Amino acid sequence: MGKEITGHTGLLCLLGSPVAHSISPAMHNEACKQLGLDYAYLAFDVPEEKMPQAVEGLRTMGARGWNITMPGKNIMCKLADKLSPASEISGACNTIVNEDGVLTAYTTDGVGFMRAVKDKGVDIIGKKMTLLGAGGAATAILVQAALDGVAEIQVFNIKDAFWERAQDIVNQLNERTTCKVTLHDYEDPEVLRAAIADSAILVNGTSVGMAPKTDATIITDTTMFQPDLFVFDVIYNPKETRLLREAKAAGCKTSNGMYMLLYQGAASFELWTGQEMPVDIIKEKYFS
Amino acid sequence: MGKEITGHTGLLCLLGSPVAHSISPAMHNEACKQLGLDYAYLAFDVPEEKMPQAVEGLRTMGARGWNITMPGKNIMCKLADKLSPASEISGACNTIVNEDGVLTAYTTDGVGFMRAVKDKGVDIIGKKMTLLGAGGAATAILVQAALDGVAEIQVFNIKDAFWERAQDIVNQLNERTTCKVTLHDYEDPEVLRAAIADSAILVNGTSVGMAPKTDATIITDTTMFQPDLFVFDVIYNPKETRLLREAKAAGCKTSNGMYMLLYQGAASFELWTGQEMPVDIIKEKYFS
Repeated sequence: MGKEITGHTGLLCLLGSPVAHSISPAMHNEACKQLGLDYAYLAFDVPEEKMPQAVEGLRTMGARGWNITMPGKNIMCKLADKLSPASEISGACNTIVNEDGVLTAYTTDGVGFMRAVKDKGVDIIGKKMTLLGAGGAATAILVQAALDGVAEIQVFNIKDAFWERAQDIVNQLNERTTCKVTLHDYEDPEVLRAAIADSAILVNGTSVGMAPKTDATIITDTTMFQPDLFVFDVIYNPKETRLLREAKAAGCKTSNGMYMLLYQGAASFELWTGQEMPVDIIKEKYFS
Repeated sequence: MGKEITGHTGLLCLLGSPVAHSISPAMHNEACKQLGLDYAYLAFDVPEEKMPQAVEGLRTMGARGWNITMPGKNIMCKLADKLSPASEISGACNTIVNEDGVLTAYTTDGVGFMRAVKDKGVDIIGKKMTLLGAGGAATAILVQAALDGVAEIQVFNIKDAFWERAQDIVNQLNERTTCKVTLHDYEDPEVLRAAIADSAILVNGTSVGMAPKTDATIITDTTMFQPDLFVFDVIYNPKETRLLREAKAAGCKTSNGMYMLLYQGAASFELWTGQEMPVDIIKEKYFS
Protein backbone atom coordinates (compact mmCIF):
# COMPACT_ATOMS: atom_id res chain seq x y z
CA MET A 1 0.00 0.00 0.00
CA GLY A 2 1.03 3.57 -0.61
CA LYS A 3 1.10 5.10 2.85
CA GLU A 4 -0.74 4.60 6.15
CA ILE A 5 -4.10 2.94 5.61
CA THR A 6 -7.05 5.27 6.22
CA GLY A 7 -10.78 5.19 5.54
CA HIS A 8 -9.99 6.28 1.99
CA THR A 9 -7.64 3.40 1.16
CA GLY A 10 -8.94 1.24 -1.68
CA LEU A 11 -8.81 -2.55 -1.79
CA LEU A 12 -7.04 -4.71 -4.35
CA CYS A 13 -6.62 -8.42 -3.77
CA LEU A 14 -5.84 -11.91 -4.96
CA LEU A 15 -8.45 -14.67 -4.86
CA GLY A 16 -7.64 -18.37 -5.15
CA SER A 17 -6.42 -21.27 -3.10
CA PRO A 18 -3.70 -21.46 -1.93
CA VAL A 19 -2.63 -17.82 -2.06
CA ALA A 20 -0.72 -17.08 1.14
CA HIS A 21 2.70 -17.53 -0.45
CA SER A 22 1.95 -15.44 -3.55
CA ILE A 23 4.38 -12.68 -4.46
CA SER A 24 1.53 -10.50 -5.77
CA PRO A 25 0.80 -8.64 -2.49
CA ALA A 26 4.46 -7.67 -2.13
CA MET A 27 4.72 -6.59 -5.77
CA HIS A 28 1.56 -4.50 -5.89
CA ASN A 29 1.92 -2.93 -2.45
CA GLU A 30 5.49 -1.91 -3.29
CA ALA A 31 4.36 -0.42 -6.61
CA CYS A 32 1.61 1.57 -4.82
CA LYS A 33 4.14 2.76 -2.27
CA GLN A 34 6.55 3.87 -4.97
CA LEU A 35 3.84 5.81 -6.78
CA GLY A 36 2.01 7.09 -3.69
CA LEU A 37 -1.20 5.29 -4.63
CA ASP A 38 -3.69 4.70 -1.83
CA TYR A 39 -4.47 0.98 -2.22
CA ALA A 40 -3.83 -2.08 -0.07
CA TYR A 41 -3.41 -5.41 -1.89
CA LEU A 42 -4.32 -8.48 0.19
CA ALA A 43 -4.71 -12.18 -0.56
CA PHE A 44 -7.83 -14.19 0.28
CA ASP A 45 -7.96 -17.97 0.24
CA VAL A 46 -11.22 -18.74 -1.55
CA PRO A 47 -12.16 -22.10 -3.08
CA GLU A 48 -13.81 -22.17 -6.50
CA GLU A 49 -17.33 -22.87 -5.20
CA LYS A 50 -17.19 -19.79 -2.96
CA MET A 51 -16.09 -17.39 -5.71
CA PRO A 52 -19.64 -16.04 -6.31
CA GLN A 53 -19.95 -14.89 -2.69
CA ALA A 54 -16.46 -13.42 -2.68
CA VAL A 55 -17.15 -11.53 -5.91
CA GLU A 56 -20.47 -10.11 -4.71
CA GLY A 57 -18.78 -9.05 -1.49
CA LEU A 58 -15.93 -7.31 -3.30
CA ARG A 59 -18.34 -5.64 -5.72
CA THR A 60 -20.46 -4.43 -2.79
CA MET A 61 -17.48 -3.19 -0.85
CA GLY A 62 -16.21 -1.25 -3.85
CA ALA A 63 -12.88 -3.08 -4.24
CA ARG A 64 -11.09 -1.54 -7.23
CA GLY A 65 -10.09 -4.89 -8.65
CA TRP A 66 -8.56 -8.27 -8.06
CA ASN A 67 -6.42 -11.03 -9.43
CA ILE A 68 -7.60 -14.59 -9.65
CA THR A 69 -5.32 -17.58 -9.51
CA MET A 70 -6.26 -21.24 -9.59
CA PRO A 71 -8.86 -22.59 -9.12
CA GLY A 72 -10.98 -19.54 -9.98
CA LYS A 73 -9.75 -18.44 -13.40
CA ASN A 74 -12.59 -19.95 -15.40
CA ILE A 75 -15.54 -19.39 -13.10
CA MET A 76 -14.49 -15.75 -12.65
CA CYS A 77 -15.21 -15.13 -16.35
CA LYS A 78 -18.79 -16.23 -15.77
CA LEU A 79 -19.11 -13.89 -12.78
CA ALA A 80 -17.89 -10.81 -14.66
CA ASP A 81 -20.21 -8.44 -16.51
CA LYS A 82 -17.90 -7.85 -19.46
CA LEU A 83 -14.98 -9.74 -20.99
CA SER A 84 -11.87 -8.50 -22.76
CA PRO A 85 -11.34 -10.15 -26.18
CA ALA A 86 -8.61 -12.42 -24.76
CA SER A 87 -10.84 -13.53 -21.88
CA GLU A 88 -13.77 -14.07 -24.20
CA ILE A 89 -11.73 -16.35 -26.47
CA SER A 90 -9.93 -18.26 -23.72
CA GLY A 91 -12.81 -18.42 -21.24
CA ALA A 92 -10.33 -17.52 -18.51
CA CYS A 93 -9.22 -14.41 -16.69
CA ASN A 94 -6.72 -13.44 -14.04
CA THR A 95 -7.79 -9.82 -13.48
CA ILE A 96 -11.04 -8.05 -12.69
CA VAL A 97 -11.50 -4.29 -12.88
CA ASN A 98 -14.48 -2.91 -10.96
CA GLU A 99 -15.90 0.30 -12.43
CA ASP A 100 -18.71 1.39 -10.08
CA GLY A 101 -19.99 -2.15 -9.71
CA VAL A 102 -19.46 -3.24 -13.32
CA LEU A 103 -16.86 -6.00 -13.47
CA THR A 104 -14.67 -6.47 -16.53
CA ALA A 105 -12.50 -9.58 -16.86
CA TYR A 106 -9.05 -9.48 -18.41
CA THR A 107 -6.33 -12.04 -18.80
CA THR A 108 -2.91 -10.46 -18.46
CA ASP A 109 -0.84 -13.67 -18.42
CA GLY A 110 -0.48 -13.51 -22.19
CA VAL A 111 0.33 -9.80 -22.04
CA GLY A 112 2.95 -10.66 -19.44
CA PHE A 113 4.44 -13.24 -21.77
CA MET A 114 4.59 -10.82 -24.71
CA ARG A 115 6.27 -8.17 -22.55
CA ALA A 116 8.75 -10.68 -21.15
CA VAL A 117 9.73 -11.69 -24.69
CA LYS A 118 10.15 -8.06 -25.71
CA ASP A 119 12.16 -7.45 -22.54
CA LYS A 120 14.67 -10.02 -23.83
CA GLY A 121 15.10 -7.96 -26.98
CA VAL A 122 13.33 -10.52 -29.13
CA ASP A 123 10.70 -9.46 -31.69
CA ILE A 124 8.19 -12.18 -32.57
CA ILE A 125 5.55 -10.02 -34.30
CA GLY A 126 4.99 -11.36 -37.82
CA LYS A 127 7.04 -14.48 -37.02
CA LYS A 128 6.30 -18.13 -36.29
CA MET A 129 5.86 -19.76 -32.87
CA THR A 130 5.86 -23.34 -31.66
CA LEU A 131 3.86 -23.65 -28.46
CA LEU A 132 3.87 -26.75 -26.25
CA GLY A 133 0.80 -27.33 -24.08
CA ALA A 134 -2.83 -26.29 -23.98
CA GLY A 135 -3.45 -25.65 -20.27
CA GLY A 136 -4.09 -22.28 -18.69
CA ALA A 137 -0.69 -20.68 -19.19
CA ALA A 138 -0.29 -22.02 -22.72
CA THR A 139 -3.76 -20.85 -23.70
CA ALA A 140 -3.14 -17.34 -22.38
CA ILE A 141 0.06 -17.17 -24.43
CA LEU A 142 -1.61 -18.58 -27.52
CA VAL A 143 -4.48 -16.10 -27.46
CA GLN A 144 -2.40 -12.99 -26.77
CA ALA A 145 0.29 -13.89 -29.29
CA ALA A 146 -2.39 -14.37 -31.96
CA LEU A 147 -4.12 -11.08 -31.04
CA ASP A 148 -0.80 -9.19 -30.99
CA GLY A 149 0.29 -10.21 -34.49
CA VAL A 150 2.43 -13.34 -34.30
CA ALA A 151 2.03 -14.68 -37.86
CA GLU A 152 1.69 -18.41 -37.23
CA ILE A 153 1.40 -20.58 -34.13
CA GLN A 154 1.67 -24.36 -34.11
CA VAL A 155 0.31 -25.75 -30.85
CA PHE A 156 1.36 -29.21 -29.68
CA ASN A 157 -0.48 -31.13 -27.03
CA ILE A 158 -1.16 -34.69 -26.01
CA LYS A 159 -4.74 -35.83 -26.55
CA ASP A 160 -5.77 -35.07 -22.98
CA ALA A 161 -8.70 -33.31 -21.35
CA PHE A 162 -7.60 -29.99 -22.86
CA TRP A 163 -7.58 -31.14 -26.49
CA GLU A 164 -11.17 -30.24 -27.34
CA ARG A 165 -11.02 -26.84 -25.68
CA ALA A 166 -7.74 -26.18 -27.47
CA GLN A 167 -9.33 -27.01 -30.83
CA ASP A 168 -12.16 -24.62 -30.11
CA ILE A 169 -9.78 -21.79 -29.22
CA VAL A 170 -7.66 -22.49 -32.29
CA ASN A 171 -10.81 -22.24 -34.44
CA GLN A 172 -11.83 -18.97 -32.84
CA LEU A 173 -8.38 -17.45 -33.36
CA ASN A 174 -8.37 -18.44 -37.02
CA GLU A 175 -11.72 -16.73 -37.42
CA ARG A 176 -11.02 -13.61 -35.39
CA THR A 177 -7.33 -12.87 -36.04
CA THR A 178 -4.92 -12.88 -38.98
CA CYS A 179 -2.74 -15.44 -37.17
CA LYS A 180 -2.64 -18.91 -38.68
CA VAL A 181 -3.07 -21.33 -35.77
CA THR A 182 -2.92 -25.13 -35.93
CA LEU A 183 -3.19 -27.84 -33.30
CA HIS A 184 -0.96 -30.92 -33.50
CA ASP A 185 -0.47 -34.15 -31.65
CA TYR A 186 2.64 -33.86 -29.48
CA GLU A 187 3.22 -37.59 -30.05
CA ASP A 188 4.33 -36.94 -33.67
CA PRO A 189 8.02 -35.91 -33.38
CA GLU A 190 8.59 -35.16 -37.04
CA VAL A 191 5.80 -32.59 -37.21
CA LEU A 192 7.21 -31.03 -34.05
CA ARG A 193 10.74 -31.01 -35.50
CA ALA A 194 9.52 -29.30 -38.67
CA ALA A 195 7.57 -26.71 -36.69
CA ILE A 196 10.55 -25.83 -34.49
CA ALA A 197 12.89 -25.64 -37.46
CA ASP A 198 10.63 -22.97 -38.93
CA SER A 199 9.97 -20.99 -35.72
CA ALA A 200 11.49 -17.86 -34.20
CA ILE A 201 10.32 -18.96 -30.75
CA LEU A 202 9.65 -22.22 -28.94
CA VAL A 203 7.50 -21.94 -25.81
CA ASN A 204 7.07 -24.57 -23.13
CA GLY A 205 3.65 -23.83 -21.68
CA THR A 206 3.45 -27.11 -19.73
CA SER A 207 4.70 -27.93 -16.26
CA VAL A 208 7.17 -30.54 -17.54
CA GLY A 209 10.52 -29.80 -15.90
CA MET A 210 9.11 -27.97 -12.90
CA ALA A 211 10.49 -28.73 -9.44
CA PRO A 212 10.63 -31.31 -7.99
CA LYS A 213 10.79 -33.23 -11.30
CA THR A 214 13.67 -31.22 -12.68
CA ASP A 215 15.08 -34.16 -14.66
CA ALA A 216 12.16 -34.02 -17.06
CA THR A 217 12.10 -32.05 -20.30
CA ILE A 218 9.44 -31.55 -22.94
CA ILE A 219 12.04 -31.73 -25.75
CA THR A 220 13.97 -34.97 -25.33
CA ASP A 221 15.64 -34.79 -28.74
CA THR A 222 18.02 -31.86 -28.49
CA THR A 223 18.79 -31.98 -32.21
CA MET A 224 15.50 -30.11 -32.62
CA PHE A 225 17.16 -26.92 -31.32
CA GLN A 226 18.63 -24.50 -33.86
CA PRO A 227 20.77 -21.49 -32.85
CA ASP A 228 18.31 -18.87 -34.17
CA LEU A 229 15.59 -20.23 -31.88
CA PHE A 230 14.49 -18.30 -28.78
CA VAL A 231 13.37 -20.83 -26.16
CA PHE A 232 10.93 -19.60 -23.52
CA ASP A 233 9.89 -21.74 -20.55
CA VAL A 234 6.93 -20.55 -18.45
CA ILE A 235 8.51 -22.36 -15.47
CA TYR A 236 10.63 -20.31 -13.05
CA ASN A 237 11.29 -22.97 -10.46
CA PRO A 238 14.00 -24.00 -11.15
CA LYS A 239 15.21 -20.77 -12.71
CA GLU A 240 16.87 -22.83 -15.42
CA THR A 241 14.96 -25.97 -16.41
CA ARG A 242 16.63 -28.85 -18.22
CA LEU A 243 14.90 -27.55 -21.37
CA LEU A 244 16.55 -24.13 -21.05
CA ARG A 245 19.92 -25.59 -20.08
CA GLU A 246 20.00 -27.86 -23.12
CA ALA A 247 18.68 -25.15 -25.44
CA LYS A 248 21.38 -22.79 -24.22
CA ALA A 249 24.00 -25.47 -24.81
CA ALA A 250 22.71 -25.73 -28.36
CA GLY A 251 23.26 -22.00 -28.84
CA CYS A 252 19.73 -20.75 -28.26
CA LYS A 253 18.74 -17.58 -26.46
CA THR A 254 16.51 -18.53 -23.50
CA SER A 255 14.15 -17.10 -20.89
CA ASN A 256 12.34 -18.55 -17.92
CA GLY A 257 8.84 -17.45 -16.85
CA MET A 258 9.80 -15.14 -14.03
CA TYR A 259 9.30 -11.90 -15.92
CA MET A 260 6.07 -13.23 -17.38
CA LEU A 261 4.87 -13.27 -13.75
CA LEU A 262 6.21 -9.76 -13.22
CA TYR A 263 4.67 -8.34 -16.37
CA GLN A 264 1.27 -9.96 -15.92
CA GLY A 265 1.22 -8.16 -12.56
CA ALA A 266 2.35 -4.92 -14.18
CA ALA A 267 -0.45 -5.22 -16.76
CA SER A 268 -3.07 -5.80 -14.03
CA PHE A 269 -1.68 -2.89 -12.05
CA GLU A 270 -2.04 -0.59 -15.04
CA LEU A 271 -5.63 -1.70 -15.58
CA TRP A 272 -6.51 -0.82 -11.99
CA THR A 273 -4.50 2.34 -11.48
CA GLY A 274 -3.95 3.73 -14.96
CA GLN A 275 -0.29 4.02 -14.04
CA GLU A 276 2.77 2.13 -15.15
CA MET A 277 4.25 -0.20 -12.57
CA PRO A 278 7.83 0.82 -11.71
CA VAL A 279 9.09 -2.53 -12.94
CA ASP A 280 12.81 -1.84 -12.46
CA ILE A 281 12.31 -1.43 -8.71
CA ILE A 282 10.00 -4.45 -8.55
CA LYS A 283 12.49 -6.57 -10.51
CA GLU A 284 15.29 -5.63 -8.17
CA LYS A 285 13.32 -6.24 -4.97
CA TYR A 286 11.33 -9.36 -5.87
CA PHE A 287 12.63 -10.91 -9.09
CA SER A 288 16.38 -11.06 -8.70
CA MET B 1 -1.31 -2.82 9.76
CA GLY B 2 1.62 -4.35 11.51
CA LYS B 3 4.29 -4.53 8.81
CA GLU B 4 4.41 -4.85 5.03
CA ILE B 5 1.27 -6.53 3.69
CA THR B 6 1.86 -10.06 2.39
CA GLY B 7 -0.31 -12.98 1.36
CA HIS B 8 -0.60 -13.85 5.06
CA THR B 9 -2.01 -10.49 6.17
CA GLY B 10 -5.49 -10.76 7.64
CA LEU B 11 -8.35 -8.38 6.95
CA LEU B 12 -10.24 -6.27 9.48
CA CYS B 13 -12.60 -3.55 8.35
CA LEU B 14 -15.38 -1.08 8.96
CA LEU B 15 -18.71 -1.33 7.14
CA GLY B 16 -21.23 1.47 6.96
CA SER B 17 -21.97 4.63 5.04
CA PRO B 18 -20.30 7.07 5.15
CA VAL B 19 -17.04 5.61 6.51
CA ALA B 20 -14.17 7.32 4.69
CA HIS B 21 -13.54 9.85 7.45
CA SER B 22 -13.65 7.33 10.31
CA ILE B 23 -10.77 7.28 12.76
CA SER B 24 -11.06 3.50 13.14
CA PRO B 25 -8.59 2.53 10.36
CA ALA B 26 -5.91 4.79 11.83
CA MET B 27 -6.54 3.52 15.36
CA HIS B 28 -6.54 -0.20 14.56
CA ASN B 29 -3.68 -0.13 12.06
CA GLU B 30 -1.56 1.78 14.54
CA ALA B 31 -2.38 -0.71 17.29
CA CYS B 32 -1.45 -3.62 14.99
CA LYS B 33 1.78 -1.87 14.08
CA GLN B 34 2.65 -1.32 17.74
CA LEU B 35 2.02 -4.97 18.58
CA GLY B 36 3.43 -6.44 15.35
CA LEU B 37 0.09 -8.02 14.43
CA ASP B 38 -0.38 -8.92 10.77
CA TYR B 39 -3.75 -7.33 9.97
CA ALA B 40 -4.83 -4.51 7.69
CA TYR B 41 -7.94 -2.53 8.72
CA LEU B 42 -9.82 -0.89 5.85
CA ALA B 43 -13.14 0.93 5.53
CA PHE B 44 -15.82 -0.04 3.02
CA ASP B 45 -18.76 2.17 2.18
CA VAL B 46 -21.72 -0.23 2.18
CA PRO B 47 -25.39 0.79 2.38
CA GLU B 48 -27.73 -1.17 4.65
CA GLU B 49 -29.43 -3.12 1.85
CA LYS B 50 -26.07 -4.40 0.63
CA MET B 51 -24.89 -5.67 4.03
CA PRO B 52 -25.85 -9.31 3.32
CA GLN B 53 -23.57 -9.46 0.27
CA ALA B 54 -20.74 -7.71 2.08
CA VAL B 55 -21.04 -10.10 5.02
CA GLU B 56 -21.06 -13.23 2.86
CA GLY B 57 -18.05 -11.89 0.99
CA LEU B 58 -16.11 -11.19 4.18
CA ARG B 59 -17.05 -14.58 5.64
CA THR B 60 -15.92 -16.30 2.43
CA MET B 61 -12.67 -14.36 2.27
CA GLY B 62 -11.88 -15.23 5.87
CA ALA B 63 -11.81 -11.69 7.24
CA ARG B 64 -11.04 -11.90 10.97
CA GLY B 65 -13.71 -9.40 11.91
CA TRP B 66 -15.26 -6.04 11.29
CA ASN B 67 -16.91 -3.03 12.83
CA ILE B 68 -20.28 -1.78 11.76
CA THR B 69 -21.39 1.80 11.95
CA MET B 70 -24.65 3.33 10.80
CA PRO B 71 -26.75 2.26 8.97
CA GLY B 72 -25.82 -1.40 9.49
CA LYS B 73 -25.89 -1.89 13.27
CA ASN B 74 -29.28 -3.56 13.48
CA ILE B 75 -29.30 -5.64 10.30
CA MET B 76 -25.83 -6.97 11.14
CA CYS B 77 -27.29 -8.71 14.22
CA LYS B 78 -29.63 -10.61 11.94
CA LEU B 79 -26.73 -11.65 9.69
CA ALA B 80 -24.61 -13.01 12.53
CA ASP B 81 -24.72 -16.64 13.68
CA LYS B 82 -24.41 -15.89 17.40
CA LEU B 83 -25.09 -12.86 19.58
CA SER B 84 -23.39 -11.65 22.73
CA PRO B 85 -25.84 -10.97 25.58
CA ALA B 86 -25.62 -7.20 25.02
CA SER B 87 -26.32 -7.60 21.30
CA GLU B 88 -29.15 -9.97 21.97
CA ILE B 89 -30.85 -7.53 24.34
CA SER B 90 -30.26 -4.40 22.29
CA GLY B 91 -30.72 -5.94 18.83
CA ALA B 92 -27.65 -4.01 17.69
CA CYS B 93 -23.95 -4.68 17.27
CA ASN B 94 -20.88 -2.78 16.21
CA THR B 95 -18.41 -5.69 16.06
CA ILE B 96 -18.31 -9.07 14.35
CA VAL B 97 -15.77 -11.77 15.14
CA ASN B 98 -15.34 -14.46 12.47
CA GLU B 99 -14.24 -17.83 13.86
CA ASP B 100 -13.78 -20.12 10.84
CA GLY B 101 -16.92 -18.82 9.18
CA VAL B 102 -19.04 -18.56 12.34
CA LEU B 103 -19.92 -14.93 12.99
CA THR B 104 -20.53 -13.63 16.52
CA ALA B 105 -21.99 -10.17 17.04
CA TYR B 106 -20.88 -7.95 19.91
CA THR B 107 -21.66 -4.40 20.87
CA THR B 108 -18.65 -2.69 22.37
CA ASP B 109 -20.06 0.85 22.53
CA GLY B 110 -21.38 0.20 26.02
CA VAL B 111 -18.11 -1.41 27.05
CA GLY B 112 -16.37 1.68 25.72
CA PHE B 113 -18.60 3.87 27.85
CA MET B 114 -17.94 1.84 31.01
CA ARG B 115 -14.17 1.98 30.42
CA ALA B 116 -14.29 5.71 29.69
CA VAL B 117 -16.09 6.31 33.01
CA LYS B 118 -13.56 4.19 34.87
CA ASP B 119 -10.75 6.05 33.10
CA LYS B 120 -12.05 9.24 34.73
CA GLY B 121 -11.62 7.64 38.15
CA VAL B 122 -15.36 7.35 38.69
CA ASP B 123 -16.95 4.16 40.05
CA ILE B 124 -20.61 3.72 39.15
CA ILE B 125 -20.99 0.01 40.00
CA GLY B 126 -23.80 -0.37 42.56
CA LYS B 127 -24.81 3.27 42.05
CA LYS B 128 -27.63 5.12 40.31
CA MET B 129 -27.61 6.51 36.77
CA THR B 130 -29.82 8.95 34.94
CA LEU B 131 -29.66 8.32 31.20
CA LEU B 132 -31.08 10.71 28.61
CA GLY B 133 -32.08 9.20 25.25
CA ALA B 134 -33.01 5.83 23.82
CA GLY B 135 -31.26 5.80 20.46
CA GLY B 136 -28.32 3.59 19.52
CA ALA B 137 -25.64 5.09 21.77
CA ALA B 138 -28.00 5.44 24.76
CA THR B 139 -29.21 1.86 24.37
CA ALA B 140 -25.67 0.49 24.23
CA ILE B 141 -24.85 2.37 27.44
CA LEU B 142 -28.07 1.27 29.14
CA VAL B 143 -27.55 -2.41 28.40
CA GLN B 144 -23.88 -2.57 29.34
CA ALA B 145 -24.35 -0.54 32.51
CA ALA B 146 -27.15 -2.87 33.62
CA LEU B 147 -25.11 -5.99 32.78
CA ASP B 148 -22.03 -4.61 34.56
CA GLY B 149 -23.77 -3.92 37.88
CA VAL B 150 -25.04 -0.35 37.96
CA ALA B 151 -27.77 -0.59 40.62
CA GLU B 152 -30.49 1.56 39.12
CA ILE B 153 -30.96 3.33 35.79
CA GLN B 154 -33.67 5.87 35.07
CA VAL B 155 -34.01 6.40 31.34
CA PHE B 156 -35.64 9.56 30.00
CA ASN B 157 -36.86 9.93 26.48
CA ILE B 158 -39.47 11.81 24.52
CA LYS B 159 -42.32 9.66 23.25
CA ASP B 160 -40.71 9.22 19.84
CA ALA B 161 -40.12 6.26 17.53
CA PHE B 162 -37.67 4.72 20.04
CA TRP B 163 -40.08 4.65 22.98
CA GLU B 164 -41.54 1.19 22.38
CA ARG B 165 -38.16 -0.44 21.71
CA ALA B 166 -36.82 1.27 24.83
CA GLN B 167 -39.66 -0.15 26.92
CA ASP B 168 -38.92 -3.62 25.56
CA ILE B 169 -35.23 -3.34 26.42
CA VAL B 170 -36.04 -1.98 29.88
CA ASN B 171 -38.31 -4.98 30.47
CA GLN B 172 -35.62 -7.41 29.33
CA LEU B 173 -33.02 -5.84 31.60
CA ASN B 174 -35.34 -6.01 34.61
CA GLU B 175 -35.85 -9.71 33.87
CA ARG B 176 -32.27 -10.63 33.07
CA THR B 177 -30.19 -8.43 35.40
CA THR B 178 -30.26 -7.23 39.00
CA CYS B 179 -30.37 -3.62 37.82
CA LYS B 180 -33.62 -1.74 38.41
CA VAL B 181 -34.43 0.03 35.17
CA THR B 182 -37.29 2.45 34.55
CA LEU B 183 -38.37 4.48 31.52
CA HIS B 184 -39.71 8.00 31.99
CA ASP B 185 -41.11 10.77 29.88
CA TYR B 186 -38.49 13.44 29.40
CA GLU B 187 -41.25 16.03 29.33
CA ASP B 188 -41.78 15.68 33.09
CA PRO B 189 -39.06 17.94 34.67
CA GLU B 190 -39.80 17.09 38.27
CA VAL B 191 -39.27 13.36 37.79
CA LEU B 192 -36.03 14.17 35.95
CA ARG B 193 -34.91 16.53 38.74
CA ALA B 194 -35.56 13.86 41.37
CA ALA B 195 -33.70 11.23 39.36
CA ILE B 196 -30.63 13.43 38.88
CA ALA B 197 -30.64 14.45 42.55
CA ASP B 198 -30.34 10.77 43.43
CA SER B 199 -27.76 9.76 40.76
CA ALA B 200 -23.99 9.33 40.75
CA ILE B 201 -23.92 9.87 37.01
CA LEU B 202 -25.97 11.75 34.42
CA VAL B 203 -25.45 10.64 30.83
CA ASN B 204 -26.51 12.49 27.72
CA GLY B 205 -27.01 9.76 25.13
CA THR B 206 -28.76 12.04 22.62
CA SER B 207 -27.28 14.27 19.94
CA VAL B 208 -28.63 17.45 21.55
CA GLY B 209 -25.73 19.92 21.72
CA MET B 210 -23.73 18.38 18.89
CA ALA B 211 -22.17 20.63 16.27
CA PRO B 212 -23.43 22.62 14.51
CA LYS B 213 -26.24 23.22 17.04
CA THR B 214 -23.89 23.87 19.93
CA ASP B 215 -26.28 26.31 21.63
CA ALA B 216 -28.63 23.47 22.51
CA THR B 217 -28.55 21.50 25.76
CA ILE B 218 -30.59 18.59 27.04
CA ILE B 219 -30.68 20.09 30.57
CA THR B 220 -32.03 23.62 30.33
CA ASP B 221 -32.52 24.05 34.06
CA THR B 222 -29.02 24.13 35.51
CA THR B 223 -30.33 23.99 39.05
CA MET B 224 -30.69 20.23 38.44
CA PHE B 225 -26.90 19.81 38.69
CA GLN B 226 -25.43 18.92 42.08
CA PRO B 227 -21.68 18.91 42.77
CA ASP B 228 -21.46 15.15 43.42
CA LEU B 229 -22.81 14.40 39.97
CA PHE B 230 -20.57 13.08 37.21
CA VAL B 231 -21.90 14.34 33.89
CA PHE B 232 -21.02 12.31 30.77
CA ASP B 233 -21.90 13.48 27.26
CA VAL B 234 -21.52 10.96 24.41
CA ILE B 235 -20.86 13.92 22.09
CA TYR B 236 -17.22 14.80 21.34
CA ASN B 237 -17.82 17.51 18.76
CA PRO B 238 -17.59 20.05 20.30
CA LYS B 239 -15.21 18.64 22.91
CA GLU B 240 -17.13 20.56 25.54
CA THR B 241 -20.87 20.83 24.90
CA ARG B 242 -23.03 23.45 26.56
CA LEU B 243 -24.22 20.65 28.86
CA LEU B 244 -20.69 19.90 30.04
CA ARG B 245 -19.73 23.55 30.31
CA GLU B 246 -22.73 24.35 32.53
CA ALA B 247 -22.29 21.17 34.58
CA LYS B 248 -18.67 22.04 35.17
CA ALA B 249 -19.68 25.57 36.23
CA ALA B 250 -22.04 23.94 38.76
CA GLY B 251 -19.11 22.00 40.21
CA CYS B 252 -19.66 18.67 38.49
CA LYS B 253 -16.95 16.36 37.17
CA THR B 254 -17.49 15.89 33.40
CA SER B 255 -16.42 13.81 30.43
CA ASN B 256 -17.14 13.98 26.72
CA GLY B 257 -17.55 10.88 24.49
CA MET B 258 -14.10 10.82 22.95
CA TYR B 259 -12.70 8.04 25.10
CA MET B 260 -15.93 6.06 24.68
CA LEU B 261 -14.96 5.97 20.98
CA LEU B 262 -11.42 4.97 21.86
CA TYR B 263 -12.44 2.23 24.26
CA GLN B 264 -15.16 0.75 22.04
CA GLY B 265 -12.36 0.33 19.49
CA ALA B 266 -10.04 -1.15 22.09
CA ALA B 267 -12.73 -3.65 23.08
CA SER B 268 -13.28 -4.68 19.44
CA PHE B 269 -9.53 -4.98 18.92
CA GLU B 270 -9.25 -7.31 21.90
CA LEU B 271 -12.09 -9.48 20.60
CA TRP B 272 -10.30 -9.92 17.25
CA THR B 273 -6.70 -10.20 18.37
CA GLY B 274 -6.86 -11.41 21.95
CA GLN B 275 -4.47 -8.59 22.78
CA GLU B 276 -4.88 -5.36 24.65
CA MET B 277 -4.81 -2.24 22.52
CA PRO B 278 -1.93 0.05 23.53
CA VAL B 279 -4.40 2.79 24.41
CA ASP B 280 -1.85 5.28 25.72
CA ILE B 281 -0.17 5.50 22.33
CA ILE B 282 -3.53 5.62 20.54
CA LYS B 283 -4.75 8.37 22.88
CA GLU B 284 -1.68 10.45 22.23
CA LYS B 285 -1.74 10.03 18.45
CA TYR B 286 -5.46 10.23 17.71
CA PHE B 287 -7.38 11.45 20.77
CA SER B 288 -5.52 14.49 21.99
